[in-house]
This record gives sequence, C-alpha cells and structure tokens, in this order.
Amino acid sequence: MVHTPVAGFTAGAVSAGVRKDGRIDLALIAGHDSYPAAAVFTKNRLAAAPVQIGRRHLEGGRLRAVLANSGCANAATGDKGLEACLATCQAAAKALGCPADEVLPCSTGVIGQLLPAEKIVNAMPGLAASLSPEGLPQAEGAIMTTDAFMKMAQATVTIQDRPVTVVGLAKGAGMIHPDMATMLAYVLTDAAASAPALQKALEIAAGLSFNRASVDGDTSTNDTLLLWASGQAGNAELQADDPELAILAAAVSKVCQELAAMLVADGEGAGHLIRVVVTGAESDQAARHTAFAIAHSPLCKTAFAGRDPNWGRVLSTAGAEAARRGLGFAEDKTCLWIGDALIAENGVYTNSTAEEEAAQIMKRERYQIRLYLGLGQGQFWVFTSDLDHKYIEINADYRS
Amino acid sequence: MVHTPVAGFTAGAVSAGVRKDGRIDLALIAGHDSYPAAAVFTKNRLAAAPVQIGRRHLEGGRLRAVLANSGCANAATGDKGLEACLATCQAAAKALGCPADEVLPCSTGVIGQLLPAEKIVNAMPGLAASLSPEGLPQAEGAIMTTDAFMKMAQATVTIQDRPVTVVGLAKGAGMIHPDMATMLAYVLTDAAASAPALQKALEIAAGLSFNRASVDGDTSTNDTLLLWASGQAGNAELQADDPELAILAAAVSKVCQELAAMLVADGEGAGHLIRVVVTGAESDQAARHTAFAIAHSPLCKTAFAGRDPNWGRVLSTAGAEAARRGLGFAEDKTCLWIGDALIAENGVYTNSTAEEEAAQIMKRERYQIRLYLGLGQGQFWVFTSDLDHKYIEINADYRS
Repeated sequence: MVHTPVAGFTAGAVSAGVRKDGRIDLALIAGHDSYPAAAVFTKNRLAAAPVQIGRRHLEGGRLRAVLANSGCANAATGDKGLEACLATCQAAAKALGCPADEVLPCSTGVIGQLLPAEKIVNAMPGLAASLSPEGLPQAEGAIMTTDAFMKMAQATVTIQDRPVTVVGLAKGAGMIHPDMATMLAYVLTDAAASAPALQKALEIAAGLSFNRASVDGDTSTNDTLLLWASGQAGNAELQADDPELAILAAAVSKVCQELAAMLVADGEGAGHLIRVVVTGAESDQAARHTAFAIAHSPLCKTAFAGRDPNWGRVLSTAGAEAARRGLGFAEDKTCLWIGDALIAENGVYTNSTAEEEAAQIMKRERYQIRLYLGLGQGQFWVFTSDLDHKYIEINADYRS
Repeated sequence: MVHTPVAGFTAGAVSAGVRKDGRIDLALIAGHDSYPAAAVFTKNRLAAAPVQIGRRHLEGGRLRAVLANSGCANAATGDKGLEACLATCQAAAKALGCPADEVLPCSTGVIGQLLPAEKIVNAMPGLAASLSPEGLPQAEGAIMTTDAFMKMAQATVTIQDRPVTVVGLAKGAGMIHPDMATMLAYVLTDAAASAPALQKALEIAAGLSFNRASVDGDTSTNDTLLLWASGQAGNAELQADDPELAILAAAVSKVCQELAAMLVADGEGAGHLIRVVVTGAESDQAARHTAFAIAHSPLCKTAFAGRDPNWGRVLSTAGAEAARRGLGFAEDKTCLWIGDALIAENGVYTNSTAEEEAAQIMKRERYQIRLYLGLGQGQFWVFTSDLDHKYIEINADYRS
C-alpha cells in the first residue's frame, strides 16, 4: 500500500451515515490552496448530478477540494439531485474558505437515490478536522463499494532536476462490464503544470490505462478521473507544448495503468486478470474491436473462470465481431497463444501438450492470451477478467 | 409437446457415440422425396464445416434430408472438417438413395473438435431404420446440448381451402449471449411453396423471432434455420410474389416466435423470460439498439435474476448506449415500467408502492419491462433472460 503524502495535499474521511451499514463513507481531499486540475468524466448520457456540477466546476481549471461519498450515486435524481450536490459543495467550501466552484463533487452507489445532503453538511466539521497529509488511504477507504481491496499506486520522476511524486487512488470493481460500474480515480502530483497541460497528460494516460479496460469511453453515470497538481515540487509550470510534459504524462500513465489493472483484477468476483492481445489485424482499430469483443464475451470469460483453454470460443468471438463490424477474417490464418502455448495454429487445434500447458497457465492470477489474425500490422491490447459466481452474487444482491 | 407428424416427412435418431456420455446424438429428418427448402445460416466469419457445406447444398433449393449431430461442432477444423462432413452427407445420401448435395448437415457441440465421421457413417443403417412419421421428438432429443427442455411448436392455417401444418423444432439455450450459442431450428410444412417463396417467408419469420433474441444477426459458428416444404397439403405451389404467401409466413413466424421464446426462457440457467420493449425512440433502429443494450447488460440481467427493480441500471444502460451510438437521450423524459408498475417517471423514481409492485412482477416467469424515451415514434422489442449462477456453472464447465 502506498502511504506517500503528496506535498500540498491533505485528506481525511468520516462516516456521514450515507451508507446504511455505518461504514466510513465520506472523503475530502484538499489542497493547501487552489491548484490547476483536469478531469475526464463519464460519457454516459445519463450523467449523475455530481458529474454535471463537476464538469462546470472544472471549467475554471482549478480545484481546492474533492468531496466524495459512497452509498449513493445521486444519479437520475433530477433538479433535487443537483440542489443536494451543490449544498454539499457549499458546505465544503465554507469549511475550507474557498469558492464552491473550486470543489469537485463525486458520488458512487445506487443509481436513483437522492443524496442526503443534510447528513453530509452535518458531517463537514468532523471531516475538515480529519484532514492530514497522511490521509489518502482513509479517503480511499471511504469511496470503496464492492471493491475487495484498496487501489493505490505511485511513481516518482525527475522534472527539471527536481523529484516529482505522482500518487493515484481509485475505486471501482466492475470491470467485467466496465461501462456500468462506477470508477473514481484521483491522481495527485506535486509537479507544477497548467490545467491544459494536465488535460493533455491525463488523456494520454487514460488512453493507455482505463480506456483499455472499458468500452468506447462509455462509462457509468458517475465516472470521474482527476489529475491535480500542487506545484510544490518547484519546477517551472509545465505547459501543454513543453517537451518535458511527456515525463509527467509517462508517470501518470504508469500510475493509471497500475490502478486499471487493479480495477480489472478486482472485477467484482474475478479471480484472474487477463491481458488480451490482438495482433496481425488489418488496423489498430480492428484489433481494438476484436480485443474488446473477447474481453466482453461471457462465454470466453466463463471459460477463463473454468481455467478451460476453450480456444474455439475465442476464435468464434473474433469471427462474430468481424461479421458485426465488417472486418476481414481468415480462419486459416488465425493463431492463438495462451501464455506461450500455441493452442491453435492456422485455425486448427495444435496438440494436447499445448492444451495442457495452456490449462496450467490459466491457473495463474495474471496471464496473457494473444490472437494473431494474419491480416496486417494492426494491434491492440486490453485488460479483462473472468466471469465467476461472485459477480452474480454481488450484482444480483447489490441493493438488498 | 407437439407430436403432429407433417405429411411427407419422417425422422429418427440413434446414439452414434459422438457424445461421450452415450446419449442419443444423431438425428435424421428425411423427405419422402426431395422438396423445396430455404435456410438462414450464421453470419459468423468462422463458419463451421457443416455450414460451409450446407450453404452449397442449399444452392439447389431442394433437400432430401437433414443430418444433425450433437457432441461436436466440427468448427475450426479446416479441410479435414470439410472432408468429414462430406463423408457423412454421402453416407446419408447412400442410405436414402439421393444425391449427397440434397443432404443438409448440421453439427452442435464443442468448437475445434473434428467430427468423427466414421462413427456417423457406421450408425447410418440404424439411423435410416429408425425413420418414422412420429420421429420428430426423437430428432429433437438428439440435437439437444445444454437445453433444459425440448422445444417444439406448431401452427395450422388454411391456404386455398386446404389445411396446412407447420411444425418447428429447435435446440439452443444460450440466449444470454446469443451470438455464441448454437441455434439449430427446423421448420417443416406440408404446404407447397417454391424455394424463393420459402426464403422470403423464412426471412420475415426470422426478423420477428430469432433475430429479436440475437444480436445483429451475428450467431455462433453453426447456427442454421431451415424451412422445408413437402407440398403434400396439395395447394398450388406458392411463389415469392403470391399474396397467400403471407399466410404461410405468418404461421412460420408464429412457430419461430414460440421457439425463440423457449430458447430464451431456457437461456442456460435463466429463470425468467423478459420482453424488453423500447418506445418513444427517435427511430426504430435507435429503439432496437437500446433494447439490445438492455437485453445484453450483465448488470441489468443480474438485477433481473435478483428480482431487484433496479431501474437506475436500465436507464444508465440506455444512456451509455446513446453515448456509444450517438443517439438522443433526454433523462427528464424517460419513463420505465416493470409490468404495469411505473417505477421511474421523467427520469426520477416514482414511489415505493410502484417499486413493491415491480418486485412482485419480477417474481413471474415471464414479464415485460418498457422504457419510454420521449424522443419520437421509434419502437422495438426483444426477448432476454436473467443472468443467474447456473449460466456460470454451465459455461465454465461445459467442456469438462
């Protein structure tokens, strides 16, 4: 677990009573001052109240605080949901002495339930008092829902001879069907960077991490990914066109990739993290479609859960996606590796030695499958997980 | 169970030893003579050997027999798979005294395993001897795999003052992810109709039945839907432009719709059959995308399994699909009914009375949910099932 504080930030958490079970459910991350920030929000057309307000608040490019709760998504709650969300931003702003539009609100939990703003407002004095430079793990704990474990990652890099820290925390465990399960991720750094530079770095990082564990950017009603920079490292503020921004982007990408891998590995009951690599496609886009089709196929994912090298299901999924998308497909050119075991070559089964080897590899917590299509140079990879009983238990009973 | 014979046809089944468990696994349906036939095959680019050969054999527009086995899909088996399939067609042709290209071969089972042609050839004398006008249920039994129950349906109509019988039998129980689970369906009639007329009637019927329980026509490696007409009813042969073809098409549609409902209801562990109706969409196509998105969402389907009126997941799925497809979406216009219970109105929760009513409705074996989008006149409906533990059990352990 990462306990590195990030210079310029404090965090804390309390139980506000939003969750019925009395667990810690409200987190605050605060800057000593307002700092440049950039965010990527859900593309779902049903955007939760905190996302609607968060988008507005990010327009200024600066944040003083993030206020996040679990237990209630405050999505599909209409005007009352917006009012409730704003009231909590105002309470946080009052406690910190900043404008309300420098507060980013985030919520995760059941869709369709109105945020109990009063409980959050009442909890604010205690929440503000809990702020500490070592408080990030507490904040992480407050936003966990079905997560089986905490998700934090860090990286350090050197920018202009100054050590720069990047720390990320995330919640989310629904990567089995990522466009539905809320993902909140906050990446904090002490680097100095302008809001447009942060936006650029964040989009690069998202493309190499969370967007490879998700579908076409479709996300839940509440998804929020934040990059926030205190500037305490003392480098000259990075601008969007600075070559050195690439160093920060790489560090943010590394942190996001670790968080994304943890999200998928935690995938609501998943036992395995599988990297699905597609090569030899007619284009990168074609490889992307094929990789996501495999990553989302319940029949492939139940085979992963059963540790069953059922390679025919993978090829059939690729063939079906080719038909759906109008892509090329040459059965007699496809090859499939599970780990290093070549189980299908030129469209047909190789041998039982490879199958046994594949079955052994599938017992691992993390492994890779690679489908070669023999059509061109296109390639793409995504993370996926297996589909096990626990997924059903969690999602059939989530509200009860 | 339907036991109506169809004039002109006989059927039978034996155990050929393709399945390891010794169950009846080989079926033959034979015409007294060769009759006009039409078929719709999988659009999967990975088409099984029997589909490749079946397409060729249907080019003549006439069939004498259908030869179908369970236990092996003979898909992703290359040239050897084609040879094995042809050998079985030749054996059936020899037993019946017809050309091999009047035999439609069908296989269902594990992908990637070569059809053991010799076992089927050796079983042919016994299979031919088992043919009887009452044999359709035996043929149905031979092609079942994970099916929990037999699927047969019938209709009778009058064409040119003559009673016409339509009987269908189907296997398939994978409608939870329909583009992967093999569906075989044979619809027999004693009507007289040309092959082009049958093709037209079959495509109408498929559009009103199986294609509403499937995705974009993407199907498994082996899917086959056949319409075959003995002409024994004695009507003048229907042509593609005959107005009376509509009567036959309606009867075939009714039979296919019943079979499709049974397939979904059987959906590999499913406990509920849910009709998802989307209305008020900007177009029928938009309604179709939205209905299928809901029908395929694991989060919606686990809520169905949990009998949980988690309406927010349905709205969120619609919002995500709108983002994915670039469709309109107005949160404050959406309404959702579960049965007759209006649980969300203009994007927000109605009341606990409606929620309790909805929870009661969700205990039923069959019910309907209706999403109104408030954007236009477009509508579409599809069948879906819930996602329960049994699905995982069946699909994780299918090969072992």
